[in-house]
Formats: sequence, structure tokens, C-alpha cells
Amino acid sequence: MDVGQDDDLKDIEERAYKAGAVKHYAIDAKKDFAEGPIAMAIMANALYEDKYPLGTALARPLIAEKIIEVAKREGCDAVAHGSTSKGNDQVRFNETLMALAPDLMIIEPAKIWGMNRAEEVEYAKKHGIPIPNIHSRFSIDDNLWSRSIEGHETDDPSAEVPEDAFKWTVPPEKVSEPLILEVEFREGLPVAVNGERMDLVGLISLLNKVVGAHGFGRVDHVENRVVGFKSREVYEAPAALTLIEAHRDLEKLIYTPLEYRFKKFIDQEWTDLVYGGLWHEPLREELSDFAKSMNRWVSGVVKVKVFGGLTIIGRESPYASYSKDLVDYVSGWYPSEEEARGFIRMHVLHSLTAYRTRHKA
Amino acid sequence: MDVGQDDDLKDIEERAYKAGAVKHYAIDAKKDFAEGPIAMAIMANALYEDKYPLGTALARPLIAEKIIEVAKREGCDAVAHGSTSKGNDQVRFNETLMALAPDLMIIEPAKIWGMNRAEEVEYAKKHGIPIPNIHSRFSIDDNLWSRSIEGHETDDPSAEVPEDAFKWTVPPEKVSEPLILEVEFREGLPVAVNGERMDLVGLISLLNKVVGAHGFGRVDHVENRVVGFKSREVYEAPAALTLIEAHRDLEKLIYTPLEYRFKKFIDQEWTDLVYGGLWHEPLREELSDFAKSMNRWVSGVVKVKVFGGLTIIGRESPYASYSKDLVDYVSGWYPSEEEARGFIRMHVLHSLTAYRTRHKA
Amino acid sequence: MDVGQDDDLKDIEERAYKAGAVKHYAIDAKKDFAEGPIAMAIMANALYEDKYPLGTALARPLIAEKIIEVAKREGCDAVAHGSTSKGNDQVRFNETLMALAPDLMIIEPAKIWGMNRAEEVEYAKKHGIPIPNIHSRFSIDDNLWSRSIEGHETDDPSAEVPEDAFKWTVPPEKVSEPLILEVEFREGLPVAVNGERMDLVGLISLLNKVVGAHGFGRVDHVENRVVGFKSREVYEAPAALTLIEAHRDLEKLIYTPLEYRFKKFIDQEWTDLVYGGLWHEPLREELSDFAKSMNRWVSGVVKVKVFGGLTIIGRESPYASYSKDLVDYVSGWYPSEEEARGFIRMHVLHSLTAYRTRHKA
Amino acid sequence: MDVGQDDDLKDIEERAYKAGAVKHYAIDAKKDFAEGPIAMAIMANALYEDKYPLGTALARPLIAEKIIEVAKREGCDAVAHGSTSKGNDQVRFNETLMALAPDLMIIEPAKIWGMNRAEEVEYAKKHGIPIPNIHSRFSIDDNLWSRSIEGHETDDPSAEVPEDAFKWTVPPEKVSEPLILEVEFREGLPVAVNGERMDLVGLISLLNKVVGAHGFGRVDHVENRVVGFKSREVYEAPAALTLIEAHRDLEKLIYTPLEYRFKKFIDQEWTDLVYGGLWHEPLREELSDFAKSMNRWVSGVVKVKVFGGLTIIGRESPYASYSKDLVDYVSGWYPSEEEARGFIRMHVLHSLTAYRTRHKA
Repeated sequence: MDVGQDDDLKDIEERAYKAGAVKHYAIDAKKDFAEGPIAMAIMANALYEDKYPLGTALARPLIAEKIIEVAKREGCDAVAHGSTSKGNDQVRFNETLMALAPDLMIIEPAKIWGMNRAEEVEYAKKHGIPIPNIHSRFSIDDNLWSRSIEGHETDDPSAEVPEDAFKWTVPPEKVSEPLILEVEFREGLPVAVNGERMDLVGLISLLNKVVGAHGFGRVDHVENRVVGFKSREVYEAPAALTLIEAHRDLEKLIYTPLEYRFKKFIDQEWTDLVYGGLWHEPLREELSDFAKSMNRWVSGVVKVKVFGGLTIIGRESPYASYSKDLVDYVSGWYPSEEEARGFIRMHVLHSLTAYRTRHKA
Repeated sequence: MDVGQDDDLKDIEERAYKAGAVKHYAIDAKKDFAEGPIAMAIMANALYEDKYPLGTALARPLIAEKIIEVAKREGCDAVAHGSTSKGNDQVRFNETLMALAPDLMIIEPAKIWGMNRAEEVEYAKKHGIPIPNIHSRFSIDDNLWSRSIEGHETDDPSAEVPEDAFKWTVPPEKVSEPLILEVEFREGLPVAVNGERMDLVGLISLLNKVVGAHGFGRVDHVENRVVGFKSREVYEAPAALTLIEAHRDLEKLIYTPLEYRFKKFIDQEWTDLVYGGLWHEPLREELSDFAKSMNRWVSGVVKVKVFGGLTIIGRESPYASYSKDLVDYVSGWYPSEEEARGFIRMHVLHSLTAYRTRHKA
Repeated sequence: MDVGQDDDLKDIEERAYKAGAVKHYAIDAKKDFAEGPIAMAIMANALYEDKYPLGTALARPLIAEKIIEVAKREGCDAVAHGSTSKGNDQVRFNETLMALAPDLMIIEPAKIWGMNRAEEVEYAKKHGIPIPNIHSRFSIDDNLWSRSIEGHETDDPSAEVPEDAFKWTVPPEKVSEPLILEVEFREGLPVAVNGERMDLVGLISLLNKVVGAHGFGRVDHVENRVVGFKSREVYEAPAALTLIEAHRDLEKLIYTPLEYRFKKFIDQEWTDLVYGGLWHEPLREELSDFAKSMNRWVSGVVKVKVFGGLTIIGRESPYASYSKDLVDYVSGWYPSEEEARGFIRMHVLHSLTAYRTRHKA
Repeated sequence: MDVGQDDDLKDIEERAYKAGAVKHYAIDAKKDFAEGPIAMAIMANALYEDKYPLGTALARPLIAEKIIEVAKREGCDAVAHGSTSKGNDQVRFNETLMALAPDLMIIEPAKIWGMNRAEEVEYAKKHGIPIPNIHSRFSIDDNLWSRSIEGHETDDPSAEVPEDAFKWTVPPEKVSEPLILEVEFREGLPVAVNGERMDLVGLISLLNKVVGAHGFGRVDHVENRVVGFKSREVYEAPAALTLIEAHRDLEKLIYTPLEYRFKKFIDQEWTDLVYGGLWHEPLREELSDFAKSMNRWVSGVVKVKVFGGLTIIGRESPYASYSKDLVDYVSGWYPSEEEARGFIRMHVLHSLTAYRTRHKA
């Protein structure tokens, strides 16, 4: 399944047949991935625990869905995958399989045989199954939306991740000049960069390249897994981090303060559900609808500067809830002294009544 | 009042007497400011609407408190301040004055006379009151924790803020080498940088200088004022942004996922109350106690790299809720296949029962 | 405007003309009221501060809307209403007037003349404006959804409200036999009682009568007003309390635990917005859409018993997320010992890892 | 362990020895139960999913704690309990055992042998272990705080529970006169009824008796279990429901609106953690501290009337955030027309700016 990862699909096919596959399917799911789960993730500003843009978590249900389609077409009575018993992905794969194809048996050899990663590698070697990047110290999962790096030095949360772990981003000190980008959004989704319209797959690919080349897009944090423990996780996600930062900035220009706070709550719930593998929890769908509905106003342009970090430097929208007259300190509207006094008094009245009562006591 | 701003206190005194003051007090409140409101803001990760570290909002109640002390010592029956009727600060000043000195009359000439900023300048000129930086296009309020920039080009949220508006930070493209910092926290508060212990005033001053010089610390966003409208706000806050980012990272290493989510909620409530001028709302104090209590575990060291942006590159704590055995994919604990199956099944059961019921219907 | 209150509309018309009206409109808005705001209040389980079903708060925006229609038809340039400066209703009326007819001047004589209630009564007497119930100790506002009782004995939150304040409900000790009701809901709204289908106006009127006659439907609590102070409020709302209790019970049968918790949050936000007079806050509309969408599954029958109090005694729905097989302790599904162990271990793992770390320290 | 249940402790001892016990402990934990978990449940208004006062959930961690004490004293290397694999209690028991005595083996015969309830009964008969109430259709768990009824007719959520399932409450139609109670609270806990001071065990026992005899205290709802499915649950809890209702009413008199909303959130989180068996999750302890701290103001008297249902009819507190002057419509404070206008305008300004922007578009 091509969800935008840096894999050679031909090579995967060859390895499949070498491993004994009777039939192999290669599916290009990039467009489905971008316009489905990724589009929702943008509208929901999805950053798990405020950091991780969910790349892998978003792809798993889609992959499982496509697998079910093939399994049904081929009349399979079981599907297999290689998840271990301590990762998040087993939950994400199996939830979708159980929701959409409850009669399909799920076979997870690594769990049944109780293999850890080292033993899996040993098994593959023994049975002549070639493993790409077998000499890499890191375990990588990448797709259009993010590249995750696990293993070795990353396991120790206090150790700095070595530079050779990164592939999509350069370190800031290697950058020579700033990048200015104008990202245009229509109803919550990015549609153009610097005036050039492009589809979501193209736009994300472009941003991954140019933003990463300007030294922005790394995440390094300690994450709470759904299976009950913390792990230090390292990601590269230049496009995701740029688009979400820009999207949130635009929302803030448009939403009322009540909408802004409520939307954050929606976003966090949606993100937690997706991370936790609850793609078919009815609330997930309802939150998607809600986020989509609120995004129908989120159109406009956000200007960002990238150089090591990213700063928003301007934004505009036809739906900006912004009044020059209210803001202007020279010629704009001023409440009268008495109006202001009335507002302040009633704004603080509940608080001060309680404050005084308790301080007298 | 010295809360760390770039003012010449001598000059202020002179201007006071020129303006007709009978008596002038100069109070150094930097230590009170840092160890009181700022310390709480660090423990509460206070970023209003996820961006503004609250510098001005934190200082106002303290300033009002000190004014009341002077007013009481001098036997005053009124205090005066220059707030207009459309800013946030009128609420913050008056709330504290009303809470702690309800019998003190509050006189706000700019509001009574209905003056806008231009008319205030005119009035000052006419009465021989010197105004520093009268030729500056920008209206600045700064203290130890942040420097806010308002007026002129900043009023238009789509226009880039010109470089001469900034004073504490250089643009990333002027930076030549990365800065690596190890910040040590004890019970939620920073106590040392790169192994050197210092008090909070010193530590914040240092970070403002070195982090700003490495191109990090600007905020540019559209903010919802308490008086009912949005304004585009621009800040410089190198120390604040660094310390809050590091503090949050450390909390994530230590807190359970439930604590992490709950603490975020606490933090947002606290921040909204302080921004909104409700310093004496009883809940504000209770949230402070709660945040303080949760911070008794937040000790450890966070390592950050600054160059244009800021990235956390490592962290450690004696209270890390982190288990190498759980994380390790080679020699660590693995649930059995059946244990994992049981977990997944019960984890998704509520969701899938509802999913199936509704999809049958 | 007839929103279901116990008023003689003829009498109101006469009083209008006596007071000098040039033209009088009598509008029957009962159906609009029931199928618009009340229907939403049912779907949102709207109980302000867990008690008040919002009768008055729901009616005000509708009344203002109808007034604007008349004002436009008649070419008025101003509208007037009798709100004082310390109630909630001034906010609710004016918000709608300002939202929908910003050019219409709002005249509030009681506020302009600074009249309190006693002075208003004096003024009316002096000008020959008849006041119904002038001898009543209580100030009543009623409509289809609730009857509110204010003034005199009710002002003191510790004093029991005398029996003659109540009109829609009998005290429980006067009830002689229990009432059993089966309320049928379709997509979140009640459509039939004891098998008999009726429209919302009829259904609510019926429940007010029969439930009130069986000693249920009183509310007595201390409420936080939007203008900054608490007041003790007393209501009668037999239909509202019955329908909301039944509706919540049905939702619990159908929703997943995540939906249930999320919906409560939606409900509270919606209720707070409506109470606070923010009918045209965009979030209010969005929350309405969300609540409506989640209610498309809320169909079924709830059986309640009323006698002094109300207890739900049974419920069923085609969308119940309820599995007899899962529940059954005799023949139903049991997780294996190992599956249960896996679930428990991962369910408590984050918590216990942190617990142990901190207790060692 | 005596946690207030209707058991004959002598009888239990005899059965223990008959079943082959070498040594038997009888522990009176009523006081520990009331002043520990129950006191916290009152301060946290703990009603799981707004209905269930948590009786069983509160007792389990305490029982496990006492078992560990005995196990340590006796030098045991394992403990056993009879939980099945599909209830909540296995989680609650095991979490405490795993937290406090990680080296103690947990043996759960019903799960190991895969027995359902019928098979357990069969097993007991075969081995001569007497089962009390073997002919009861219902499975009962009771203690000081609630009595839960499961099995048979209760399994079907649409079927009315037969009258013989209840023991602590009479149906409302059997009540002949109302009961008036004045409950006094000190710092969040009930200390006296109708002026008579009593300890918590006595006070709860009394209320269970008198309130139950006046036809109040039944709960019938559909509950989301932690193990992933819904079950219909029926409880009797006259004291718990009375005390929580009174306590919430008193809090509302005292807390600011912001405190009230925040406290509800605390309460729900605490309740969910306890129901879900996460007694040793660090957040549980922190929420307890928070709730306790907020309760230091919750002193006063609440007057309730019980007859079939329960209504609060009055309340008072030295810490009431209640001002007669603000409430009084005759002689009290009135904002001026302009003050009120200023308040309303700024209160609605964010909302109406957005409303107009979007409706123009």
C-alpha cells in the first residue's frame, strides 16, 4: 500500500513473492489518504499530546480497510499482520478489522510466537525473507504525513537523537536563507502555496521538501501509548506541522473566543480517539462532522516564515471576526467611562462577592 | 514600579514631579514579580490562547497591590491610572483595587475625558508632561516576562511587523550558531541553566538575552480581548517561551496521561482567569494551589537547542514515569497474545457494539 | 405574544390600548416556541446549573424576533421593553435585537428612569395602567416550558416557599396514586405518551397537567445570574423535568460512554449560552446542530413512574448499544482469565508505573 | 469485612471454616469506610454517570487494602477472590493489590476455571459450601453507602424491577407523611441531622432508614462498565442520594459560577476514576485534595423534604456568596442604564461581530 512512504513498491512485491505469497496487490492510496484521514487531521489540528501529527495512526485504519476489500475480493477467511503485543498499531489494525469484517480471522504471528524484534529479524534471515535497511539502527515508519523514528539512541529520553536518524529535515544551522510561504485555505483545507493551486498530495509533498530543507519539522517528545506505557518518540513532519500551525492561526482570526475554546476540545478528543485506535467509535465520526462544519468558515491566507523555526507573520480571511473600528485607538469606537465601569463591575461581581465573603470569615 | 521593564526609573521620577506629583515612590518589584505571578505562570504553562505568556496581565494585579500599600501608607482616598475604556488593563487594575481596597476611589482621566491616545499625547504636550519614545510608532509595554508591541503596522493582522519593532530578539537569519541549554527544574521552577544555579530574576534575564540573540522568542497572533474584540498582538518573550516549552516537556515525562490532560485543563482555566483580570476570583487561587501541588514532582533537567526555533532534545527526571523494561523491544516485557487480545477487545468493545448496532439499522 | 403563559390575551390587548398603544398585535407563537427553542432544549437536556429548564431564557429571543418582524412591517425605528438593569432578560432581549436589527433603537424606560419595581407599580397606578395580579406577592413569568416565581419569601434562600406560590404542581402528600407514563421519542423528541401520538404543544401541556397533579415538577435552587450575582429561584416545570429526565435515560441506553460524556459537555455549553443571552453566538448554532445530529439515534420508549418524585422504571430502543449476550452471567460471553488479566494490566499500567515511581521516591 | 452490609458476620466465619479456611479474620471497617472513601464521595458529589453513588466501587480498594494487611501479617504469598472476568470488581480489587503488594500472587478461581455464576453455585453445592440467599433471584452487594441489585428481571432494561427486589426503600405510594430534614454540613461533610450531631456511620445509617421509609432512594439506569459493555443496574441508596443532593445545593450557594463549573468537572473525573478501579492513579489523589480544599467553605444547613421524591426547600451558610442588596428589587443596588448598556454590549460583542460577518457573507 502506497501511503506516501519512501519505499520501493517493486521491491516490496518481490519480497512478498520470495516470502511465499501466492498473490500480491500494490495499491496506491495516497489520494485516499490525503483527502480522507489527513484532511480531517488538518481540520482537527490533530497533534497527539500537543506534538505528534498522527501520521501512522491515521494510515492504519485506511490500510486495514483496503486489506478487507482485497480479502473480500479474494474470498479470504483470515488476514495477518506483523504487529507485536506492545505497540499501538495492533489496536488500530484490529479495531478496523473487527468493526468492518468481524468474521475475518486475524493472525498475528509475532504475537502468537511471542517474538520480539530481534527474534523476528532472526526468523526472517533463517527463512530467506530479505529485510530492507536491516543495518539501520532505527525502526522507521513513514508516510505522506510524518516519518517516525524508533529504536537505539531514541529509546533513552535523555539522549540526543543523532543527526543520521533524520532524513526529511536539515538541522537549522545548515539553513542559509529564510523561506516565506503563503498558504491558502478553503473551508479548512490548504489549496494553494504562494498562489499556486495544487492538490493535497502535491501540496503536502512540496511542503515536506521545502520546509524540511529550511530546518523545521522535527518533533521529540515522550508519548503515552494506549497500551499503558510511555515511550520517547521522534518524528519528522514538516508539512503537517506547518499546515496545522497555519490552520490554527487562521481559525483564531475567524472563531469567537467561545468557538476557539470549544474547537480545541473537539480537536483533542478527535486526536485521542484516532491515536487510541478508536476510528469506528461513533463519537469519532460525530466529531469529524462537527470539525468539518466549523471549518466551512476557515478560508483565507496565512503567511509564514521558516528558518530553523516557524513564525506566522500575517493572515487574512473574508470571515475574519475582526473590526478595525474596534481595534483602532485613534479614531475607533470607545465605550464611555460609565459603560466601561458597568462592564467591569458586572464582569468581576460574582468573583468579588465571594472573595469578600470568605476574607471577612 | 520596576517589574523589569527597559525604563529609566530616575527619568520616571523626574517626569512625575514635572507633572505635578507631590511625592513619588520608586519600588523594585522584580523579585516579587518573578517569585509570585511569574513562578505561577511557569507552573501553569500560561500561554493565553496558546501563544501569549501573559507578561502584562501578570504584572497588573501586583502593581495595583503595591499602589494600595502606598495609598494606605499615605492616607489617600483615591488612586488614578491612565487606562482607556477599551483595553484589558482597566479590568486588571480595577479588579484588584476593588477587591483589596473597595473604599478607594478609582480615577481614570482618559476614560472620564473620553480621550483616545492621540488626544492623550496632545494633552501631555500642552501641559508640559514629557513622553518618552514619543516618536516611536509603537506602543510598548514590557517587563521581565514579555515585551508587547502595539499600534501602527501591527494593527493590520495581515501585514508583516517591521524588523525595527523588535528589540529583544534577532531574526533567525542573523543567527550563526546553535545554542544548547540545559535547564534544571525543582518542583516546577527553573533553578539552574547549564549547571549554574541562579535566582528567578537572574535566570529569566539571562534567557531573555541569550535565547533572543539566537533568534527565538517572537509571538504574532490574533487575540481575543476581554472587552469583546480581537486585536493582533505581537510579543517578544524568549525566556517565557523557552521555560514553558521545557516545563511542559518535563511534565509529560512525569505525569500519567490522565494527569497530563487534566493539568492542561487547569492551565487553560488559570490562564484565562488571569488574562481576564479575575486575579481575586477564588477559583484562581484554588487552581494555583492545584498546579503547585502537581508540580511538586516536576524536577529534572531539560535540554533544548535554540536556533531560529527551539527544539527539546532530551530530558530526565527522578520522577519520570518511564520504564526501560516496558519500552525495550529486545529484552523487555511483552504481553502474551491472549493478554493483548483481551485488552484490545475490551478497549474497543463499547465503540464496536454501538457501531454495529447503528450500521445494522 | 402567546408562548403558553396563563394570560388572557384579550385583557392584554385592552391594557395596551388603555396605556396608549396605537396598534396592538396578538401573536400565537406556541407552536414556534415548542418546535424551535423547546425542541432544542430537550435534545440538549437543558438544565441551567443542573436545575432550571430555561423556560424564560428560551422564550426571550423568539419574542424579540417576532417584535422585529412587527417593527419592520410597521416601519418602526425603535422598540421598547420593560426590563430592569439587573435581570438576565435585558441581555436576552437586547442581544437578539442587536443581532437582527442593529439599526432599531432600544428604549428601556425602567432603566432610563432608574425605576425599581415598586416605582414601576407606582408609575403604572398614576397613569391608569392596570396591572394584573397587583396584589400577588410574587413576580411570575410563565410559558409552556416553565413557571418562575420570584419576590417576597423566595428572596431569602433559607425560607421555605409557601404553598400558595405554586400553581402547576400539588405537594406530594396530596397525591393519592402513582402515575405511570410511557413516553415515546423519535430522533430525540417526544412524539407520544402512553401510545397516543400528539404534537409538542399538546404533549407538553398534557404532561404539565398530569405530572404536576402527581406532585412532581418543582425546582428550588440558588442560581448564578449573568449580571453577576446569585438569586434564589423557584420554578414549576413538570413537563420539562419529566421529558429531560426521560430523554437523558434514553441517551444513556444508546450512546457509548465517550458519547455520553461528550454530549453532557455539549449540553452544558448550549445551556450556558442560552441562559446568558448569547442566542446568536455562532457556537450556539453549531452546538444545536451537533446535538441534533447526535439525537438522530435517540428513538425509543421510556417508562416513568411519578408520585412525589419521578423514577425511570424501564426503557427500550432499536438503537440500544446493549447486548444481552455480554450482560448474561449464565450463558453469555466470558473473557478468558488471561484476556481479563491483559486488559486489567494495560488498563492500570500508566497509573501504577507513576504510583510506584513516586512512592519509591 | 464489615462495611455495613446486611450480613451475619458469625455466619460468614462459619462458612469460611466449613469451606476449609485455616484461619478467619473478621474486620469492622465501617468507620474507616465512612470517614475515608465515603467522605470523599460526598465531597466529590460522586454519582457515576449521574446516578450511581459508587457504594461497591468505593469499598473494593479498602477491602483489598485490609486483605493485604492480613496477608502481610500472616506471611501469605497469594490472595484469592471470587471475581468473574466480566465485572468491574476484578479491576478494583486487582488494581489495589497490584499497587500495594505487587509481589502477592492473585488467584481468581472463577476466572481460571472459566466458571459462570451457575457453575459457581454448582461447585459450591458439590463441595458443601453453604450459600446464603441461594434461592434469591437477585445478586446483591450492599454496604453502608448503597445496595445493588443484579440478575433476573433486572437484566432486561425495559422490564420494571419487581417490588420484592427492594429492601431499603418503600414505594412512594406507601408513604403517608412527608419527612423534613435539616442536614448540617461542616467543611463539606454532614455532621448533624435536625440539630442532632452524630458520626458519619450513624448519620448515614439513620438516613438510609428514615429516607428509605419515605419512599426515596432508588436508582434504575443503564451503566457503562469498565470492561466494555452496558448493564442495567438497580440500586437503593437513600442516604447517599440525600446527602449528595443537599451537598450540591449548598455548594451552589457558596461557590462562584466558575468554581461551580470547575468543581463539577473535578467531581466527574474523580467519580470515573473510582468507578474504573483507578484508586491509585495519582490524579485520583490530587483530585481528592482539590475537592477537599474547595470543601473547606462548604458549611451550612440544608433543609430537605422527602416524600416519594426529594426537594430542597431552603439552605443557609456563613460563606454564602449571596447578597441581599444585589438581589433586592425594591431597595437594592441597580446599575445605571449606561452601565447596563456597557455590560451588555461588551458581553455580546465577540458573538455579534462574528454573527454579522458571517451573515453578510
